Amino acid sequence: MPFELRVSDLGSRQRLRSLHGQLRTAILKGRLCAGAKLPSTRSLALALAIGRNTVVSAYDMLISEGYLRAARGSGTYVATLNPGLAPQRESARHRLARDLLPRAWRTARPRALDQRRVRFDFRIGIPDLDRFPRSIWCRLLGRSQRRGARVEDLYAAPAGVERLRFAIARHISNTRAIACGPADLIVTAGAQHAFDLIARILVVPGRTVVALEDPGYAPLAAVFRAAGAHLVAVPVDEHGMVTKRVPPGAHVICVTPSHQFPLGGVLPIDRRLALLEYARRNGAVIIEDDYDSEFRFGDRPLDALQTLDQCESVFYVGSFSKILSPDLRTGFTIAPPWARDPLLSALQVNVWNCPSVYQQALADFILEGHLARHLRRVGREYSLRRKLLLDGLRTELSPWFTPIESSAGLHIAARVADGYAPEALVAKARRCGVAIENVADVAQWGSRKRAVRVVLFGYGCISQQDIAAAIGTLRNGLRQIHAN
Amino acid sequence: MPFELRVSDLGSRQRLRSLHGQLRTAILKGRLCAGAKLPSTRSLALALAIGRNTVVSAYDMLISEGYLRAARGSGTYVATLNPGLAPQRESARHRLARDLLPRAWRTARPRALDQRRVRFDFRIGIPDLDRFPRSIWCRLLGRSQRRGARVEDLYAAPAGVERLRFAIARHISNTRAIACGPADLIVTAGAQHAFDLIARILVVPGRTVVALEDPGYAPLAAVFRAAGAHLVAVPVDEHGMVTKRVPPGAHVICVTPSHQFPLGGVLPIDRRLALLEYARRNGAVIIEDDYDSEFRFGDRPLDALQTLDQCESVFYVGSFSKILSPDLRTGFTIAPPWARDPLLSALQVNVWNCPSVYQQALADFILEGHLARHLRRVGREYSLRRKLLLDGLRTELSPWFTPIESSAGLHIAARVADGYAPEALVAKARRCGVAIENVADVAQWGSRKRAVRVVLFGYGCISQQDIAAAIGTLRNGLRQIHAN
Repeated sequence: MPFELRVSDLGSRQRLRSLHGQLRTAILKGRLCAGAKLPSTRSLALALAIGRNTVVSAYDMLISEGYLRAARGSGTYVATLNPGLAPQRESARHRLARDLLPRAWRTARPRALDQRRVRFDFRIGIPDLDRFPRSIWCRLLGRSQRRGARVEDLYAAPAGVERLRFAIARHISNTRAIACGPADLIVTAGAQHAFDLIARILVVPGRTVVALEDPGYAPLAAVFRAAGAHLVAVPVDEHGMVTKRVPPGAHVICVTPSHQFPLGGVLPIDRRLALLEYARRNGAVIIEDDYDSEFRFGDRPLDALQTLDQCESVFYVGSFSKILSPDLRTGFTIAPPWARDPLLSALQVNVWNCPSVYQQALADFILEGHLARHLRRVGREYSLRRKLLLDGLRTELSPWFTPIESSAGLHIAARVADGYAPEALVAKARRCGVAIENVADVAQWGSRKRAVRVVLFGYGCISQQDIAAAIGTLRNGLRQIHAN
Repeated sequence: MPFELRVSDLGSRQRLRSLHGQLRTAILKGRLCAGAKLPSTRSLALALAIGRNTVVSAYDMLISEGYLRAARGSGTYVATLNPGLAPQRESARHRLARDLLPRAWRTARPRALDQRRVRFDFRIGIPDLDRFPRSIWCRLLGRSQRRGARVEDLYAAPAGVERLRFAIARHISNTRAIACGPADLIVTAGAQHAFDLIARILVVPGRTVVALEDPGYAPLAAVFRAAGAHLVAVPVDEHGMVTKRVPPGAHVICVTPSHQFPLGGVLPIDRRLALLEYARRNGAVIIEDDYDSEFRFGDRPLDALQTLDQCESVFYVGSFSKILSPDLRTGFTIAPPWARDPLLSALQVNVWNCPSVYQQALADFILEGHLARHLRRVGREYSLRRKLLLDGLRTELSPWFTPIESSAGLHIAARVADGYAPEALVAKARRCGVAIENVADVAQWGSRKRAVRVVLFGYGCISQQDIAAAIGTLRNGLRQIHAN
């Protein structure tokens, strides 16, 4: 069979129905083509570990329905369907796609995480799932699930469960010096979701100009590109976005002030004020992506743009993906009051709301102090990993890399030494079983990529022991590369 | 205080920080205006049930930061902030909203479920949450949660967990005669989410013409309106959409063939074939919304449009909201192959993917037979409720209502007798503690509403006992209304 049949895990009464349905599907969808010979009933029964009678019955049903034909003595074949009903895959695919889909969607392909196994995983954006306090979370989720959803929550206004908004507001007012209350927050299915909703209400296709950091967070650029905005790149230095290089005419400015993604700079207060002043003068808005600022290894955080803003021009976006688990799919935004109802309407059109049972559990998790405890605990661990990695980069790996100063986050950015091509180092590392990432691959979104020559070492999902081993492996491997 | 302060549930060390932050927020955001007098430290401490020293310290911090000022002997006041920093709510709201938001979003307001308590609840679209097999679900979710998410699942391609797609494909091939396999399915956060993603890839604003049933499912119209499509209404009779009235030039046709929403008709086979022929000839696509067809009280279902389609023109959309719980926020779509990558890309831009732990639990729930068992059990219960309600409508309530034939779903549509205004009957019912719904309110989406004169009685969340009582209550109440 050119496709998989699965029936063995079914009860005996369901097997026939399922086998019949799967074969019919395969014929209707063209996976089994007219004229194809089917396996004998005996061999198919053996292959599927089911009784032969079931296979005989399924074939008989399909013959009586006209999907199969039995040739006396020579076996069973897929029938030639009525031409009007036969699959017309290729032509339809091309015609409908060409006529109906806008070009951008027609050629779009989803990005997939590289699923190859890797011995030492320095990929970015993945926190330590083994340290996620799973048993506590299970208990809270179970409790919330047993309480169940109330009818009032089901199709309620989509801002999110009030108790969770209260919990988040208190959490970020403690950790991030953000001034907000529950009524200012909208719960989303992650930061990506918040960006997408904001883009949806702000972007007029072909007109809206959006300024983004380059290098920067490529999925954010993807959001605005999909919405039809005109994207402009703003360069980044060791202090984050070079705000004086924001071109005139930007309607939306996206920035990662507490820890520039991916280079790690902290935006100084004068640049923060300059951005706010730009917004005030030009009637622009700022999207403040505070993506992993909970992991800090130095000073107190500077005031967020959201806190400094007095003109209702800032959308603050936060997420629990990096501090707990991406699988929570929970983030939030603090939107200016004038944008709140439009955002909620967009959320309702899009997914109606986010599951309340999950939100209740997360509210408990925060309010009972588990989040703060978890952050202290993993913060200590990440800090040790970071130190190990920095030491390794500065000693054993210094011929190839120079780490860039930063005081927050879950990865270290490192400049590549002159004479080496970043892509060659990344490829060689991979062949040695070490996954590191090239900024040009994961954090540049423009069609013309400026040469950044920086690679990233994430330490979210690699143990201290593995970091030490990986540094040795990497050194031995990279020694085989010759500088130009 | 003109707003709520909450600190009593905090540990003593956090109280000061929290109180300080909440007061600061209130001042910065204009909830406490310049010149406002604060309560005395003694009275605020009493009101919050915390020590007076904490309040004194918070006031002192805010005074030192310039947010408050102490007038000797007369108390503490909110300081006049630097004019450049003072809140400018109204002007900013108007200017930014006017300059940046497209008109449709500027005036959008989220819809909220009426949260008033009601004695007898015939509202539609709400299944019986008390019969949701919560303990089984909790067990499966707990198991899935303990296994946890794997790194590979986190940022994986967004079609959904393979095991869930397999489970859904098998389930619908049994219950709905749908021919599909796991590779054809995309898991979404509910049917609404599927509609929204489809609209996102199909609609070219200002150009795409979308034909929708009227009366029909208003949130679906909201999706296409938000996407910028031109909407056209297609009338509905007792057999569902009047397909010969689909106007020429439609690019997308939305239809509820197995149980027209809200009138309940089943689309006959000739109309199904006519729709497919329209799509084939005009290069149009069909969105088949199979929203609650699992609850059937008669014949076997007709073949879905998706099954009959040979031109890759059908998007099939299903949901677990009605058959399990809306709070699962899980639905799916079977998209034509040419639309699959664009849809996945749109999903990734929008929310990245849906939480894998929930999906694993739902896969277990289906594959272990709990879904089929649940459907049989609640199907019996709904069938009894339906019968009771139909009997009541045909006897005690016959002066006002005539039920419309239908053989599926979770509600009954009933025509209002001549001489009575539907809105008057609905309002009177509500005053008697009975919530029923007017099609004009919940299922008409056009700006000019045709007079439909139908009301809806949902029986998803009302017990048999309450149905009987509600019918009596309703009869007594409606008797007080005089026909015109």
